[in-house]
Amino acid sequence: MRVSNLFTKTSKTSPSDEVAKNAQLLIRAGFINKEMAGVYSYLPLGKKTLDNIVQIIREEMNRIGGNEISLTALQQKDAWEASGRWSDEVLDVWFKTKLANGTELGLAPTHEEPLTKLMKNFISSYKDLPSYPYQFQIKFRNELRSKSGLMRGREFWMKDLYSFSRDQAEHDAFYEKAAEAYHKVYERLGLGGFTYKTFASGGSFSRYSHEFQTLSDVGEDIIYVHEGKKIAINEEVYTDEVLRDLGVTKDELVERKAVEVGNIFTLGTRFSDVLDLNYTNEKGERQKVFMGSYGIGPSRLMGLIAEHFSDEKGLVWPENIAPAKIYLVSIGQKGSEAAEVLYETLGAKGIEVLYDDRDVRPGEKFADGELMGIPYTLTVSDRLVESGQFELKSRSGDTEARLLTQDELFASISVS
Amino acid sequence: MRVSNLFTKTSKTSPSDEVAKNAQLLIRAGFINKEMAGVYSYLPLGKKTLDNIVQIIREEMNRIGGNEISLTALQQKDAWEASGRWSDEVLDVWFKTKLANGTELGLAPTHEEPLTKLMKNFISSYKDLPSYPYQFQIKFRNELRSKSGLMRGREFWMKDLYSFSRDQAEHDAFYEKAAEAYHKVYERLGLGGFTYKTFASGGSFSRYSHEFQTLSDVGEDIIYVHEGKKIAINEEVYTDEVLRDLGVTKDELVERKAVEVGNIFTLGTRFSDVLDLNYTNEKGERQKVFMGSYGIGPSRLMGLIAEHFSDEKGLVWPENIAPAKIYLVSIGQKGSEAAEVLYETLGAKGIEVLYDDRDVRPGEKFADGELMGIPYTLTVSDRLVESGQFELKSRSGDTEARLLTQDELFASISVS
Repeated sequence: MRVSNLFTKTSKTSPSDEVAKNAQLLIRAGFINKEMAGVYSYLPLGKKTLDNIVQIIREEMNRIGGNEISLTALQQKDAWEASGRWSDEVLDVWFKTKLANGTELGLAPTHEEPLTKLMKNFISSYKDLPSYPYQFQIKFRNELRSKSGLMRGREFWMKDLYSFSRDQAEHDAFYEKAAEAYHKVYERLGLGGFTYKTFASGGSFSRYSHEFQTLSDVGEDIIYVHEGKKIAINEEVYTDEVLRDLGVTKDELVERKAVEVGNIFTLGTRFSDVLDLNYTNEKGERQKVFMGSYGIGPSRLMGLIAEHFSDEKGLVWPENIAPAKIYLVSIGQKGSEAAEVLYETLGAKGIEVLYDDRDVRPGEKFADGELMGIPYTLTVSDRLVESGQFELKSRSGDTEARLLTQDELFASISVS
Repeated sequence: MRVSNLFTKTSKTSPSDEVAKNAQLLIRAGFINKEMAGVYSYLPLGKKTLDNIVQIIREEMNRIGGNEISLTALQQKDAWEASGRWSDEVLDVWFKTKLANGTELGLAPTHEEPLTKLMKNFISSYKDLPSYPYQFQIKFRNELRSKSGLMRGREFWMKDLYSFSRDQAEHDAFYEKAAEAYHKVYERLGLGGFTYKTFASGGSFSRYSHEFQTLSDVGEDIIYVHEGKKIAINEEVYTDEVLRDLGVTKDELVERKAVEVGNIFTLGTRFSDVLDLNYTNEKGERQKVFMGSYGIGPSRLMGLIAEHFSDEKGLVWPENIAPAKIYLVSIGQKGSEAAEVLYETLGAKGIEVLYDDRDVRPGEKFADGELMGIPYTLTVSDRLVESGQFELKSRSGDTEARLLTQDELFASISVS
């Protein structure tokens, strides 16, 4: 894409009403727009970044047998009354609204109830199980405060997968598979090294649930990390009993701040009980379906990654999710002509390039590429054209700026 | 995908509370689920079909310079009060809700106001124009009645593109380009031959707007078609004056029922006036930005296509948007073994196959493939395996069932 075709502009100053660093940076770089606290629009570069995160999650969910669907935001109350969660006292983040005829509706803050009800149409025998529907959907949560930018939204993107299993044993096996898939997602997002499967409080059907927590100074959660076992314990279950249960001691654990980036939960028959989701087993007996839920917030992840990897110059996207791999800067007349050719050539090779073809000072181009966090800046100047070279510089600073011939450049880009 | 992995099931009977034929068929085939009137969830096959429609529209919008974004459903009232459309008397399809602190919010039924306000951050000079942001977004419309299945939703998918131009001349040129892009979309969706650019009532800034109307007996609109000129006139502007203006006479026109599948509209400065969206031209003068809007409803299109192409056996998807190209049916033990190999081979060639690997009667498999509307049924039976052949049958009935060797099959599939 050409920067001249991008309708957004960068800004040197942060919006005065935005306190979260992730949103400040993303707004300054033109990735998102704040509609109100906790409600953000995605502009072209932000949409691309979000889509890249979504696609990684989608691939890993499909790999473990997920079936993609899309449920609705508008909800009638029946299924939620059955579970007891229609009440604003029980679930305190509802946005409620009304049909023209006065019928009260809610905007789904999560989807256990409607999906459990829906699955009654399709599950009657053990042959219909297991099943793993999932979706990427906009959730609505009427949070009292929403000051963390994309990390706590009132309208936000969620991937929620639900498992429907014959019994706890079948459930447990999938639960482990889902945990593995989550690790792969964080690995691919560039968060692998500092994201921990974290023991948190369970429900009636399991002693623990599991969160995935990414170490970060911007985190609101306190976790206790066991480096050797690559696990952590959430503050809420950090008791002597739990330590004994997990076979770890206090002196092996380090207290850290972290951000929750996903969670997996054994629901058991909590919802199939109240919504009558049953199946007939091999012996002809009626059984309750055993359920689990598995959430990851792509928009929350985008906020965390924006904040976590940033530096004083702006955003620093991991390559896998950056909206483009290369920020192409042309300087001078010959530089522009060479950049045009290079832009077409790289595009034909399937490499995403953001080409700064604007008639502005080189310093402004470099600063914008850095603020946007594009992994590589590629410079084509009159001087470089004469020497038959290009300058390639990594945004993360992992490697020094290098002068490369065109062949070296292509080799370098395709392997990196 | 294997049918055994698909959690949906087909049904022989239509749901009793559903009067629209498109929704009846789509529910019976397991493509969608009705949450309430006008509110449908997309199940795996339905999600795939919808995604295919969306992707065709996306490609054509990108081709004319569109920049994809994603605006929010939750809306504050300020911009809508400025345009006069916050009032339920003016815009009678609002769903309204409230923040926890009591602030009234609306769920966007369309996005002219928030986008015009947003663009003020980015448009100040003639150099910033033109600009063509668009999105695929869930719209909410509190329709009093909603009995047409996917064709009139209360929660539905919309592609809305908005043009921001320097003046009417620049706008008019893009408007024509957008009309051409719309024709391409309908062509690719299989609706080309019977979709007409239709003159409808305009606003303060243009005599006409244009709808795209697809001829269909299920249509609620009446249009007057001029076959020679490939245009039509909506009933609402079917006057002697308009006929004269368009240079056509009554006896050249045929009255037809049709379904609106898109519309393009010259907004002029209706929104830039009230929301102060200005730019400075080459002479340093402040000017209002000249706007247009361009809508297509992917979910409505899915409903129309489902209804329009169906027959007594079920759905009949055009190849471009079908959730799979081939419905693979195995019969017998050797048939199953050969089908397994064929399924892997076709998958490796990038051909989408829905493989009915269930242990059910062949007749049930054929009936399901037909109800789902998959373009080709490919049968592999014990008997056929012995003769080294496969049977390929087209769902639309365009061609006879054919017995093919494997080489003939691959050649046939890749060219069709």
